[in-house]
Amino acid sequence: MNPLRPFFEPESVVVIGASRNPDKLGYGVARNMIGSGFRGDIYLVNPGGGILFDRPLLKSIEELPGDVDLGLIVVPPKLVPETLIACGDKGIRHVIILTGGFRESGKEGAEIEAACQRIAREQGIRVIGPNCIGVLDTHTPLDTTFIQPPMPQAGEIAFITHSGALGAAMIDWVKGQGFGFSRVISLGNQMDVTESDVLLPTAQSPHTKVLTLYLESIQDGRKFIQKASQASKNKPVLALKVGRSAIGKKAAASHTGALAGSDTAYAAAFRRAGVQRVETIEDLFMKAKALAWCQPPKNNRVAILTNAGGPGVTAADALEQNVLQAAVFSEETIKRLAEILPDAASLQNPVDMLASASPQIYGACLELLAEDPGVDMVLVIAPPPPMFAAEDISDQLIAVAKKTSKPVVASFMGSRLVEEGIKRLRDAHIAEYAFPEDAVSALSALWQASKNAGINAQELVHQPSPGAKSAISALIKAQTLDGSFIPADVTSNILELSGLSVLGLRFADSPEGAVAHAIGLGYPVVMKVGVEGISHKSDVGGIILNLDSDEAVRESYLALQKKITPQLQTGERFGVHIQKMAGKGQEVIIGAIRDPVFGPMIMFGSGGVEVEGLKDIQFSIAPPTAHDLDYLLENTWAGKKLGGFRSFAKADAGAVRDALVKLGSLMADFPEIQEIEINPLVVMEDGQGAFAVDARMTGREA
Amino acid sequence: MNPLRPFFEPESVVVIGASRNPDKLGYGVARNMIGSGFRGDIYLVNPGGGILFDRPLLKSIEELPGDVDLGLIVVPPKLVPETLIACGDKGIRHVIILTGGFRESGKEGAEIEAACQRIAREQGIRVIGPNCIGVLDTHTPLDTTFIQPPMPQAGEIAFITHSGALGAAMIDWVKGQGFGFSRVISLGNQMDVTESDVLLPTAQSPHTKVLTLYLESIQDGRKFIQKASQASKNKPVLALKVGRSAIGKKAAASHTGALAGSDTAYAAAFRRAGVQRVETIEDLFMKAKALAWCQPPKNNRVAILTNAGGPGVTAADALEQNVLQAAVFSEETIKRLAEILPDAASLQNPVDMLASASPQIYGACLELLAEDPGVDMVLVIAPPPPMFAAEDISDQLIAVAKKTSKPVVASFMGSRLVEEGIKRLRDAHIAEYAFPEDAVSALSALWQASKNAGINAQELVHQPSPGAKSAISALIKAQTLDGSFIPADVTSNILELSGLSVLGLRFADSPEGAVAHAIGLGYPVVMKVGVEGISHKSDVGGIILNLDSDEAVRESYLALQKKITPQLQTGERFGVHIQKMAGKGQEVIIGAIRDPVFGPMIMFGSGGVEVEGLKDIQFSIAPPTAHDLDYLLENTWAGKKLGGFRSFAKADAGAVRDALVKLGSLMADFPEIQEIEINPLVVMEDGQGAFAVDARMTGREA
Repeated sequence: MNPLRPFFEPESVVVIGASRNPDKLGYGVARNMIGSGFRGDIYLVNPGGGILFDRPLLKSIEELPGDVDLGLIVVPPKLVPETLIACGDKGIRHVIILTGGFRESGKEGAEIEAACQRIAREQGIRVIGPNCIGVLDTHTPLDTTFIQPPMPQAGEIAFITHSGALGAAMIDWVKGQGFGFSRVISLGNQMDVTESDVLLPTAQSPHTKVLTLYLESIQDGRKFIQKASQASKNKPVLALKVGRSAIGKKAAASHTGALAGSDTAYAAAFRRAGVQRVETIEDLFMKAKALAWCQPPKNNRVAILTNAGGPGVTAADALEQNVLQAAVFSEETIKRLAEILPDAASLQNPVDMLASASPQIYGACLELLAEDPGVDMVLVIAPPPPMFAAEDISDQLIAVAKKTSKPVVASFMGSRLVEEGIKRLRDAHIAEYAFPEDAVSALSALWQASKNAGINAQELVHQPSPGAKSAISALIKAQTLDGSFIPADVTSNILELSGLSVLGLRFADSPEGAVAHAIGLGYPVVMKVGVEGISHKSDVGGIILNLDSDEAVRESYLALQKKITPQLQTGERFGVHIQKMAGKGQEVIIGAIRDPVFGPMIMFGSGGVEVEGLKDIQFSIAPPTAHDLDYLLENTWAGKKLGGFRSFAKADAGAVRDALVKLGSLMADFPEIQEIEINPLVVMEDGQGAFAVDARMTGREA
Repeated sequence: MNPLRPFFEPESVVVIGASRNPDKLGYGVARNMIGSGFRGDIYLVNPGGGILFDRPLLKSIEELPGDVDLGLIVVPPKLVPETLIACGDKGIRHVIILTGGFRESGKEGAEIEAACQRIAREQGIRVIGPNCIGVLDTHTPLDTTFIQPPMPQAGEIAFITHSGALGAAMIDWVKGQGFGFSRVISLGNQMDVTESDVLLPTAQSPHTKVLTLYLESIQDGRKFIQKASQASKNKPVLALKVGRSAIGKKAAASHTGALAGSDTAYAAAFRRAGVQRVETIEDLFMKAKALAWCQPPKNNRVAILTNAGGPGVTAADALEQNVLQAAVFSEETIKRLAEILPDAASLQNPVDMLASASPQIYGACLELLAEDPGVDMVLVIAPPPPMFAAEDISDQLIAVAKKTSKPVVASFMGSRLVEEGIKRLRDAHIAEYAFPEDAVSALSALWQASKNAGINAQELVHQPSPGAKSAISALIKAQTLDGSFIPADVTSNILELSGLSVLGLRFADSPEGAVAHAIGLGYPVVMKVGVEGISHKSDVGGIILNLDSDEAVRESYLALQKKITPQLQTGERFGVHIQKMAGKGQEVIIGAIRDPVFGPMIMFGSGGVEVEGLKDIQFSIAPPTAHDLDYLLENTWAGKKLGGFRSFAKADAGAVRDALVKLGSLMADFPEIQEIEINPLVVMEDGQGAFAVDARMTGREA
């Protein structure tokens, strides 16, 4: 049994702080628990005693007759610690603290919350809240909230929320929407139980078909990814993540750091976990409705059936914006459509049956489209039909939709004229939308859920030899890890030991030393200023390419020394790095960063000095999966270009993927590293590898 | 008087084809005209005669007693031509043809429509339709449609639509939305009257506060821009343009052509005309509602007032996505908020009053925020308050909102618990939204409308000297204008005559000729393959930079000749262009194209060979306004970079603007030119100019 089950399916519940005063939350909680139809025992506790809703009010927790699964605490914050102790003594191992006035209200509340947390741990009590509306389960049934009854209708959508007010608002809102909730979980301050804890038990509930999340922030990012990945294997998970504007970006030394941001990390984490991200509260539930009521589609080809051109073309536009395909019909389908539709009708997608279309014509056409092997989903559009009743169209649609396993959704546009039609669709669990654009957005969620369920989540790792690993370890230990750059030659060594192909750097602090290195490497060579404090070397003219003789190296050394020396800080000394000149290839940037919530992430995109301006960059959780690597390469121009473009030949994308895997493993293996950036990584023609030309690395601040 | 006024405010109307059969449209039209409360005379014509709605059915148009302003034709298509003649004979100069079965239904219908068009022109009859639902004006009142009565409530939003079905659906839909229409115009096949014709008369109507457009395509782009620009000076105009997916992009030879597309042109045209583009039908009306009921804000600083954190942070996120600012409150405001709110409340934006907030607290806080000089607009959020009735909050909001000129919008989240509250807001003309994100989107439309009203629409043109103009004319006339490239040296000449700074090209077809040009221009020079059939010269290695001696020029000529000759088509001959080597500067692309709907457009962005991949490009209608040029430079990375970035010094943005103005005028003055592309335009440091290094031009196909 899942250890959290008593929160959702308890056998007995006690309301601690039940009140006879209708203005108190303790009254509402008692009212809702009793009114919810809960089938187990319900006890009410209030030190004043008396009778409430025809039940005796017990004067203390001690008076409870025997084992109670779940305690609902509605007493003032100051009394909560002692209440928790009493619960523990009585063997109550699951508690929802509904009361507010804890961490969210300031220092005093935070201290009480810390005390409660300590007590709960000592007593082995699991806690939801405080400062929440608790749990509502329409199937158990159970209602620990104080929201005005009745409960919403029993449904297939679970809603897990960091905001109790939003939970309350949505519990009310769905009553006007024709669908219901399976479960609502308001997590409040998450003193103990978090979103990650409730994900799996909720996904495993047979009454839940789809999970919706409203998230403000996640504490343990890796736990979330793990639990959400498991959940999304079986049930679609949708998330609205807010707080983008509130979270400032940490100042960062590299491009990678500047471009990464909390929101980027959340996007990458959701992608990894198979969680669909939505942009608005409404979108969350519009999509959930379709996921609750439709079977997963086999592919993304949509047929549009309409009695008017305008709404049809609006829907067709929306397909393109939602990365869905307009289905192409078979000749047989077109022939049969022609038999039943007037001459002026459009037999191609979108099928415009014209305003004269009767309910029977709607039904017959829908049947033809649903049977076409080139169609995976159907959207039926009905502006108020001038000559027929919308509800008669509904009846026809329902009959056909029940016979097919392909998703059928509807957009009945209007108000009074389509009211009864919409009601019938809702009752038959056909997802309907006021506007075709919302319907198409919902279809895209169906297709995305089908794709997510099939993703292979195997992480790709690179294991360097034990010798290499201990050498890296020794190199890192020798550094001062204070957030500043690790010296370029050390960085170069670490990357090489990690298995990356690096154009190594040799340090020289005299013209003669530079020439000797150049001869050793073989001409042509590159000279780069070798002063650690100078990180954007090209900005100061600190890189000289294509030196092809001893004399050129000597002259360049002296010229660079003359230019840079006045810029040196006290204690800095001039020197250069000599590097073999890279061959001609495509230049990309790869990098890695450690996110405070989600840990190691890797980055790929268009490099050069303009990387921050062009923003042709994508991030992934590290180590990456094959799907993550596909995403990085398919969603950047830098990645697409590796396949060949104009004068750029097809390049070694495999070597780029390999380098990204190695960076990911390096980050995972060595938590001392904060950021890595390779800019450029020069990618040669297919099969010829990819070479790190310039790399920077910072250690993690202690 | 506006010549189209009889369509909206006729003094008498005749329904031609009025029918006693309730299944016929002619019945619905007669029913609606009579039921609409129209104050003028209504005549009904049907050859069968008899009585309908207690009125006599005249047997023919000839029987009409005297002048009639507006004829509504509901007879079958074949009878429409003779009906039009009869209308003309009787002096009816305005006609709405509601019947379908014309151009939209095939060849026969198209012929009838053409005949009708001819007759209407001959008789001087203005026509709306055919194949439409006509006009509904709630203030006249007038209802020429056959939509199920009653009319929607009288409102401030005008809706002009290319889709009759969408008009019908929205007429029904608004009945459930608590707002109304001033006027709905369904244009059908636009045999005569188009969207551009009705824009101004509708904007000038005192009952209309905002115009909403549903557009499938526009025939005369320049007329639309002209009329919409005038309309949007006084009334906000919102447009939904559909048909993106249907319109294929014309194959084009240049980057400019490949990146331009019908949708890009519409976007640029809307921007020029001060028309706000929306993405969905719902968004069209959600924004229109706020524009109808709020005064224009002075700036874009929004205060959020909420009784719960979650919806507040959701709204704050939406501000950022909608390019609005979160207002920063004065110390005075914060002090006074602190006096009335509990300690745990958040006094900064978003103001979270906590769940205990009473209606009076809502009112008092709203008043403080509305009075703060740092606040331009206020969004009030109310999830169902646990202890109070939502309608009491409404009453408080309404009282304060009536006292301030600053826009106040609301999001009451829920269903049954907020129903009465929402009703009161609607009745008081406070724009309310189910979700905070929609409310913020509406606020952004208010701000955009304020900005649009202030735009200076003066087009910037460059007038070359008469001599230059006739020289350009002569050069163009000498070309075969068949859609292929105009030779590079001619292109170069034309651009120079237009006032652009061009690094001129000199053609040579021998090594000696090349050397002679190089000496004439001065070293270093560039050599480019000079074969017209080869357009992407860098793709074939056809550009050699930085030649600094006679010998280098000679050798390069021979090497290039050897490489290119095998690639030549029959009839092509090898040659090169010699050009002065450009100084180091920022490289951008500028271009121009002639759009089939909107005519000349200019383009600006990041150039190079990767221009199509990076898509850092924006288009504007040409000639551009100063506002258009600002847009191009502010909305591209290439433009932002001109202000200086890392090793790039601040560049001569003024020279880029000047070059764009000149390209725009060249396109406007010479309709023979189809496309121009300058890639790169090298932009020197500020004050040092911008030079066209490589340019291509195509003539218009006859």
